[in-house]
Amino acid sequence: MKEINNNERADVLVHALPYIQQFQRKTIVVKYGGNAMINEELKAAVIQDVILMSCVGVRTVMVHGGGPEIESLLRSVGKESRFIDGLRYTDEETMEIVQMVLCGKVNKNIVSLIERQGGKAMGICGIDGGLLKAKRISETDLGLVGEIESVNTAILDALIDRDMIPVIASVAVEEASGCSLNINADTAAARIAASLGAEKLILMTDVHGVLHDVYDSDSLIRVLPKEQIPSLKAAGVISKGMLPKLDCCSFALNAGVRRAHIIDGRLPHALLVELFTDEGVGTMIE
Amino acid sequence: MKEINNNERADVLVHALPYIQQFQRKTIVVKYGGNAMINEELKAAVIQDVILMSCVGVRTVMVHGGGPEIESLLRSVGKESRFIDGLRYTDEETMEIVQMVLCGKVNKNIVSLIERQGGKAMGICGIDGGLLKAKRISETDLGLVGEIESVNTAILDALIDRDMIPVIASVAVEEASGCSLNINADTAAARIAASLGAEKLILMTDVHGVLHDVYDSDSLIRVLPKEQIPSLKAAGVISKGMLPKLDCCSFALNAGVRRAHIIDGRLPHALLVELFTDEGVGTMIE
Amino acid sequence: MKEINNNERADVLVHALPYIQQFQRKTIVVKYGGNAMINEELKAAVIQDVILMSCVGVRTVMVHGGGPEIESLLRSVGKESRFIDGLRYTDEETMEIVQMVLCGKVNKNIVSLIERQGGKAMGICGIDGGLLKAKRISETDLGLVGEIESVNTAILDALIDRDMIPVIASVAVEEASGCSLNINADTAAARIAASLGAEKLILMTDVHGVLHDVYDSDSLIRVLPKEQIPSLKAAGVISKGMLPKLDCCSFALNAGVRRAHIIDGRLPHALLVELFTDEGVGTMIE
Amino acid sequence: MKEINNNERADVLVHALPYIQQFQRKTIVVKYGGNAMINEELKAAVIQDVILMSCVGVRTVMVHGGGPEIESLLRSVGKESRFIDGLRYTDEETMEIVQMVLCGKVNKNIVSLIERQGGKAMGICGIDGGLLKAKRISETDLGLVGEIESVNTAILDALIDRDMIPVIASVAVEEASGCSLNINADTAAARIAASLGAEKLILMTDVHGVLHDVYDSDSLIRVLPKEQIPSLKAAGVISKGMLPKLDCCSFALNAGVRRAHIIDGRLPHALLVELFTDEGVGTMIE
Amino acid sequence: MKEINNNERADVLVHALPYIQQFQRKTIVVKYGGNAMINEELKAAVIQDVILMSCVGVRTVMVHGGGPEIESLLRSVGKESRFIDGLRYTDEETMEIVQMVLCGKVNKNIVSLIERQGGKAMGICGIDGGLLKAKRISETDLGLVGEIESVNTAILDALIDRDMIPVIASVAVEEASGCSLNINADTAAARIAASLGAEKLILMTDVHGVLHDVYDSDSLIRVLPKEQIPSLKAAGVISKGMLPKLDCCSFALNAGVRRAHIIDGRLPHALLVELFTDEGVGTMIE
Amino acid sequence: MKEINNNERADVLVHALPYIQQFQRKTIVVKYGGNAMINEELKAAVIQDVILMSCVGVRTVMVHGGGPEIESLLRSVGKESRFIDGLRYTDEETMEIVQMVLCGKVNKNIVSLIERQGGKAMGICGIDGGLLKAKRISETDLGLVGEIESVNTAILDALIDRDMIPVIASVAVEEASGCSLNINADTAAARIAASLGAEKLILMTDVHGVLHDVYDSDSLIRVLPKEQIPSLKAAGVISKGMLPKLDCCSFALNAGVRRAHIIDGRLPHALLVELFTDEGVGTMIE
Repeated sequence: MKEINNNERADVLVHALPYIQQFQRKTIVVKYGGNAMINEELKAAVIQDVILMSCVGVRTVMVHGGGPEIESLLRSVGKESRFIDGLRYTDEETMEIVQMVLCGKVNKNIVSLIERQGGKAMGICGIDGGLLKAKRISETDLGLVGEIESVNTAILDALIDRDMIPVIASVAVEEASGCSLNINADTAAARIAASLGAEKLILMTDVHGVLHDVYDSDSLIRVLPKEQIPSLKAAGVISKGMLPKLDCCSFALNAGVRRAHIIDGRLPHALLVELFTDEGVGTMIE
Repeated sequence: MKEINNNERADVLVHALPYIQQFQRKTIVVKYGGNAMINEELKAAVIQDVILMSCVGVRTVMVHGGGPEIESLLRSVGKESRFIDGLRYTDEETMEIVQMVLCGKVNKNIVSLIERQGGKAMGICGIDGGLLKAKRISETDLGLVGEIESVNTAILDALIDRDMIPVIASVAVEEASGCSLNINADTAAARIAASLGAEKLILMTDVHGVLHDVYDSDSLIRVLPKEQIPSLKAAGVISKGMLPKLDCCSFALNAGVRRAHIIDGRLPHALLVELFTDEGVGTMIE
Repeated sequence: MKEINNNERADVLVHALPYIQQFQRKTIVVKYGGNAMINEELKAAVIQDVILMSCVGVRTVMVHGGGPEIESLLRSVGKESRFIDGLRYTDEETMEIVQMVLCGKVNKNIVSLIERQGGKAMGICGIDGGLLKAKRISETDLGLVGEIESVNTAILDALIDRDMIPVIASVAVEEASGCSLNINADTAAARIAASLGAEKLILMTDVHGVLHDVYDSDSLIRVLPKEQIPSLKAAGVISKGMLPKLDCCSFALNAGVRRAHIIDGRLPHALLVELFTDEGVGTMIE
Repeated sequence: MKEINNNERADVLVHALPYIQQFQRKTIVVKYGGNAMINEELKAAVIQDVILMSCVGVRTVMVHGGGPEIESLLRSVGKESRFIDGLRYTDEETMEIVQMVLCGKVNKNIVSLIERQGGKAMGICGIDGGLLKAKRISETDLGLVGEIESVNTAILDALIDRDMIPVIASVAVEEASGCSLNINADTAAARIAASLGAEKLILMTDVHGVLHDVYDSDSLIRVLPKEQIPSLKAAGVISKGMLPKLDCCSFALNAGVRRAHIIDGRLPHALLVELFTDEGVGTMIE
Repeated sequence: MKEINNNERADVLVHALPYIQQFQRKTIVVKYGGNAMINEELKAAVIQDVILMSCVGVRTVMVHGGGPEIESLLRSVGKESRFIDGLRYTDEETMEIVQMVLCGKVNKNIVSLIERQGGKAMGICGIDGGLLKAKRISETDLGLVGEIESVNTAILDALIDRDMIPVIASVAVEEASGCSLNINADTAAARIAASLGAEKLILMTDVHGVLHDVYDSDSLIRVLPKEQIPSLKAAGVISKGMLPKLDCCSFALNAGVRRAHIIDGRLPHALLVELFTDEGVGTMIE
Repeated sequence: MKEINNNERADVLVHALPYIQQFQRKTIVVKYGGNAMINEELKAAVIQDVILMSCVGVRTVMVHGGGPEIESLLRSVGKESRFIDGLRYTDEETMEIVQMVLCGKVNKNIVSLIERQGGKAMGICGIDGGLLKAKRISETDLGLVGEIESVNTAILDALIDRDMIPVIASVAVEEASGCSLNINADTAAARIAASLGAEKLILMTDVHGVLHDVYDSDSLIRVLPKEQIPSLKAAGVISKGMLPKLDCCSFALNAGVRRAHIIDGRLPHALLVELFTDEGVGTMIE
């Protein structure tokens, strides 16, 4: 990177000022995932980004899953997975592994990194304080996989009011049985953003955003009005893994979240660039 | 159990009243461990006890370790332990397992049980909010095993003031490296009780308490002035596993905790009997 | 009473837990009267009951009259009563006696007993802080006998928020004249419960509850939907002294109080049995 | 009274301003008694005075006894008093009368007058909220007559912070027995003023103040340094009923109250004249 | 002025009590201007009046212009004014003078007088905290003369809650340009009163009030229902300088202010006489 | 300025993070003056700097004088100055001009710029809320020139707690006379910083800082321990205009301010560079 002198640095800070003013005291829910959670450099950058966001007064909430690390422990303990229609069935033993990895490893490691950089964070999951109540998904029997029924935001507000960043592992409680259920982290983030009346929901992904042509990164759709989603689905432009992500965004927007973003977490400091510069990174749905 | 009619029930409640008045708004730190954490019936009873304590206004804090479950996962992943002078060496891989089990499994399962019974709990560890800062123990190199240097009670007070029970996994952060360190749960409880200026530290064990003669359960020392501990050590009455527990108690008492208790967690509702009846269960050190 | 050991005691406490949880932070207004206010043993039991209720977080309010003690002082000062249609006429001199006994003797003695048992109470009447504004009853001219027009609950909330039990003598102020008016304690309790949006109104009486056949104590109606009251009145099942009590209950329920109870104050700890066991004592109207 | 026009009225208000500023947010404890409690016109004037004091931000506390009304009820019930060395012995029956009159009649009537004039007041006694704890006086056995051991000011501050005037009947509780004890109202006021760290203690009396010559009302001592009290006692200038009053003043001043006043309650609005004009009424001890 | 003795003084205070009670915790906005701002004696009286108002709990807000002093500085710097249809055109240089005089001289001098008399005041203008946002008036181009578009009362409430009197110079900000705009002080006061939901708007003038016959001071209209204003305008009774003043009053009343007053600021203590005696000074519009 | 891309921008923000964390919730008092108050571009930059500081949680206070603008108005009104030993004598007429310019023009213009950029500011002077009490300087009779005797920080804390930037014109009140006194803005800033227990006092000047050789800008003393000031004075290194500035710094440091800075206000964004980059601009005294 080229040398940037201190006058230029001051100038950059000053250019960020209107963005800071815009998001101060607003809530932004970040779904943290993908490469940004694996690559050490990207990881460090995300941590710095959320600390800076919190530091300048953005009410910042992190939600995370933990795919690869779960795989790894499942392999270590020699657990064979059963698949139903190509989807993994989450039995009790698997769920125990999921919970240990998400709540005990990934979650605490994020908190540890934030605290180490001078930020303040609290690592919780949907079990704590009754944050996320869920039921098993009804379409297919995938075992202990749930969909959220209610979010108790009181505890989140209490943490944020004390200048702490809530870091949330996407595990919920089934009210009827008391069982832990595995929740898709994108949908957890969307539900939490909706319940908090957030300004923004930001999904960190490993793609450029929504592309007109998935083989052409220049075909990025920068702004996507939610009304256009159905026709883009029909046209096959939105497909595969992008489908559930846009459903999450739609859900959040319909519930009052002002904007949803699908950003490219492979770019260092994608959050800061998205929030505090005049350039967007990825697709903004509104 | 014999039939107890409702008049008798009312009578029992009334007899508990002076004890409730005595401990209301006081802080009691419970180290939860041993059989009471394994046996399902005992476990359910402890959960009910701490909910009741919290419900009647006792500022209740739970601290836990998780020995057997750690063993079990270490075995599952085929991790061989290295021993130094008979003590297990905690390498990075082991520490990761420890953290996953303590913070992801044991901790969340306790919280889940409390919430399920209508209590309110938050599961955290020493990493969250910078609760426990530690350094590696200096006597022997046991790897990632630490001793606490500072406790940040602000977050505990905030939770308790919101009528939540903090459930604390005994994992801390090494400030210099950011590494997680394994902490003995008894000493974690003692340090936390000291920092909170607690009324009581209660260590749940699998023994009757301090016995004059370990082979004679009738030789229980019900009240032990802390000044007598050195002579009892010298006389060999306090030995082996009881030694570090009494050191914890001494530490807490010297730091201003009013009373420390070593109670027999194998008795159902040992906490309630200790606190809300005229009978103690185990040894009270003061 | 048979011996109850400490395990059984713990068990009783645990069985009370769900009831405690249910009523915590809810308001319960108790009309204290009848034998429970005369018999020393019953009196002590009621005091313990309300302290325990307050102690476990029930927002407890006591309202009382003081019939027999008023009679006694009237006799002492040689005051002859005038009767109109069989109802006593309350002239100024009588009202002065009523106020002295209710506010100066009965009220302060209840407070004194509560404070002595470690509870916190404040003895007030409808004059204090403009708590109860009333007008003379209009049907018959009974002198200084009133019906409540407004309740100023602010002062009650302030006391309860400071963990104090308001103990209220049923004397009100006539706004037009500034005169003190005598108020029936049942109706005062009902009005106060309504204004506080209470969870429960509990009237302590000297009967079993509402009986189908007043000569058969086995004919107790345990649960009485308020809709059935008119037909029971028509059938003569509800009559005499029970009539105004059920009118109070109806009034409170219609104003949003969740449940009203007519309980048998002759049973020791009737309040605790009603609230914290699975057995009701008397009739619950809902 | 001569006609005062509105310009003159405004002028009077303006002249009161510096006094209002001086006493705002300061605590003034008024012992209310004597003719000012009997004569209807004087009574109305005192009520207006304390409402005005409270209204302009003076933290006003009233303490009262009730001599003549007690006599009257004792006579009504035909109670014969026993005397010891010329002092009345307060047996249980007498104490019951005292409490009824003080707490049930005098106290509530003062509150009623204040509320009727648009002020806010709460009538309590030393029993309520454990305000006054006392023991029997030790010099002579006068039965249930006490001297104050402790004052719990928390409840007073709570009431004053809500803009209410606490009106306190001078009855206390004997901690050992739970008995009510009769307390001299001057000493109660002095103790309460001391505990509140009051700015002023004002004793309303039926005399001009401290006179050099009790037969010459022109001999009023307007300012009396507390250091001179012993010599005035020795010289017989302070004698009889004035002795205990000056002892109360000395006690309060020694405990940190800034000034004590013995004022002539026979003058209408003596409180306002003393506080809000440049003229004192009676003797100021400092 | 004739001698007023202290009994009479007390009497005057007592007569003011119901008025004090009536306006306590209510907001009164005073437009300060005219002779009362020039004559030293009147000035001192107004200052005492607002301090007294604030002292007895009236939420008092002062709004002022500063005509003559602006003229004087314009003359000193030799600034020639341009007139359009007989109205002065406010160019940039004039506005700078206006702002300096209003915010730097008149405003601070009022604050200084209040502070010197023991009151607490804060001198601000419409620029501070975004208090007054305005646009240029549209009918005629008079340069930097504005009409208020929005009032940000948050800062006023904050000051009043800290027992400070906000003293407001009638300068506002044009949002589009950031220019300062000169605002008529009467309309500023009316807008502020409306935004605060004031109890009263009081305009201090140099006339008796609204007169039926401007040449006959006995023809004062003491109470003027706002509904009669149009007919009085049509009849020519309200004309010239009184027209905009009554428009301000109408605006305030329509926006919820309870009463508006046009009072004669040439009478000393006109505010106190209006508020705290049974006589009004001038015209009350309601 | 060379093009800076968004990655670089994010990088700059991240590099500022530790500095932001360091100064969050700390108080920094900035004396604003010199070229930075005249040159439009520099002025805009300072405004952005203080808004950014406030935005990221620095408790920011601005203090200003207004030399050139005062001169200009004095000239406009044709006021001739009298000099005593080469120092201007401030007579009443001059003080009136000073106050109008400082409080009415300079102060409000700074506030207007801050508000226009989305910041929140309140323009006050030492008269408001009794912020600065002063007496005339005693060494020489310079008329209405004062030195501060006391600072009432309550009002500053209240404003800052509401996220407002207090902008303070250096005018104080002489308690004895109520006269306004002119105060040197550097000393006002130093006194205010001391009273607030500030982290930093920053004096903006038109020089590089303290130079070993005033003709050699490379001789800047970057860090100056306060203990060395006397010897540098003796050596003539600190002389002329730098003398009183360093006296201000010494005063503040001795009163507990952690660091004082003499920075070069001619550099754009000197405040941001000083605070949020690893380079200092000017001399830091500690």
